[in-house]
Amino acid sequence: MIKALLFDVFGTIVDWRCGVATEVESFFTKRSIAIDAAAFADAWRAKYQPAMEQIRRSSRNYVELDVLHRENLDATLADFDLSGLINSAARSELNRAWEKLPPWPDSVQGLTALKSRYAIAPCSNGSIALMTWLSKFANLPWDAVLGAGIAKNYKPSPEVYLASAAALGLPPTDVMMVAAHNGDLTAARNTGLKTAFIPRPTEHGPGQTTDLEPSSNWDFIASDLNHLAEKLVE
Amino acid sequence: MIKALLFDVFGTIVDWRCGVATEVESFFTKRSIAIDAAAFADAWRAKYQPAMEQIRRSSRNYVELDVLHRENLDATLADFDLSGLINSAARSELNRAWEKLPPWPDSVQGLTALKSRYAIAPCSNGSIALMTWLSKFANLPWDAVLGAGIAKNYKPSPEVYLASAAALGLPPTDVMMVAAHNGDLTAARNTGLKTAFIPRPTEHGPGQTTDLEPSSNWDFIASDLNHLAEKLVE
Repeated sequence: MIKALLFDVFGTIVDWRCGVATEVESFFTKRSIAIDAAAFADAWRAKYQPAMEQIRRSSRNYVELDVLHRENLDATLADFDLSGLINSAARSELNRAWEKLPPWPDSVQGLTALKSRYAIAPCSNGSIALMTWLSKFANLPWDAVLGAGIAKNYKPSPEVYLASAAALGLPPTDVMMVAAHNGDLTAARNTGLKTAFIPRPTEHGPGQTTDLEPSSNWDFIASDLNHLAEKLVE
Repeated sequence: MIKALLFDVFGTIVDWRCGVATEVESFFTKRSIAIDAAAFADAWRAKYQPAMEQIRRSSRNYVELDVLHRENLDATLADFDLSGLINSAARSELNRAWEKLPPWPDSVQGLTALKSRYAIAPCSNGSIALMTWLSKFANLPWDAVLGAGIAKNYKPSPEVYLASAAALGLPPTDVMMVAAHNGDLTAARNTGLKTAFIPRPTEHGPGQTTDLEPSSNWDFIASDLNHLAEKLVE
């Protein structure tokens, strides 16, 4: 029945917080600027949902996440009183931190096992470019790149899930969304997709308080992607 | 300089004629209908360019190639006086022949070698769905699926090449089109892409007369994808 699996990426497949902090640390160390890299990563990411919300509410036309990340970087540099020290070319370089995020230890093996039986694709808010370069960095074996880049809108807007299923020529009921975020799965279920939850309890660092447990009776609940593959692939 | 390679698929990566003929043969044999399967494949494919041309000339809105293939199948069945014998569900099944095409012997190895250094993606007239299911059948290791499915137009319209490069966040000059068809490369070069030619002298069967040789000074000319990888990957 299920023919394809769609995956959230930031948090579910890759550790964005450690990856961005590593790139931030390296970037500012080269410039002899001391910084709390994890705090910078958190501040940068904190502007993510509000930026997308303008587009979800149609008060701004769709622009790709790379553009929002860059605007949010500019604002974060200002918050850290670093605006005058970093020129435009350097900001563009730092913005590519989002293409250099490490996969969780089980991600590549789990995706490879799931790929043997299902079509697998990201259904992320990242652009096609961002997903492609990130996948090359992290060796993610996608069959296609779907999500915001083809829907021209941001999750959890229903179009993103529906456009991704339609792009595979499948009805929503033949597709399952896999995510570490209960809100993502709620939206996916509302469009008719099947749902699978895996916890990523350190996505937001050691003090994480959200999404530690499944909040609903999702179709599948697994401890990580290898465990999900055990359940889904004979 | 070159960061991504885009590939024509039907003819360049997979042997559509043998693949479709194999599926046609199997389909009609099961129904005890004798048919010249290669002639049927050729007749079906002969309706391909005229169908896309309506969309290129904007006399029809974009529909995916799966829809055109199905319309062309209906017309081909009529040409072969078989319309009354094949119901709609069976036609939908046969239409998926285009998802079951064998790669040329060098395709998977050559693409895998090229993937180690470049982002690789189809820039085909096939839909995202068709490219995805075909890639799973033929084990094609794409990083992303680009082409008509994201451009909503058909090659050789310039938008298809330009939208594919833009989807990777790259200027056309950082992207190379790889094809066995000189016309495809002419259009790609006109949009600013680099070009590479490999011959596929039996794409149209043993009597092929077109595209046996490169017709211009393409940036790279190679005997197959392994040879191209030798030239492009140190």
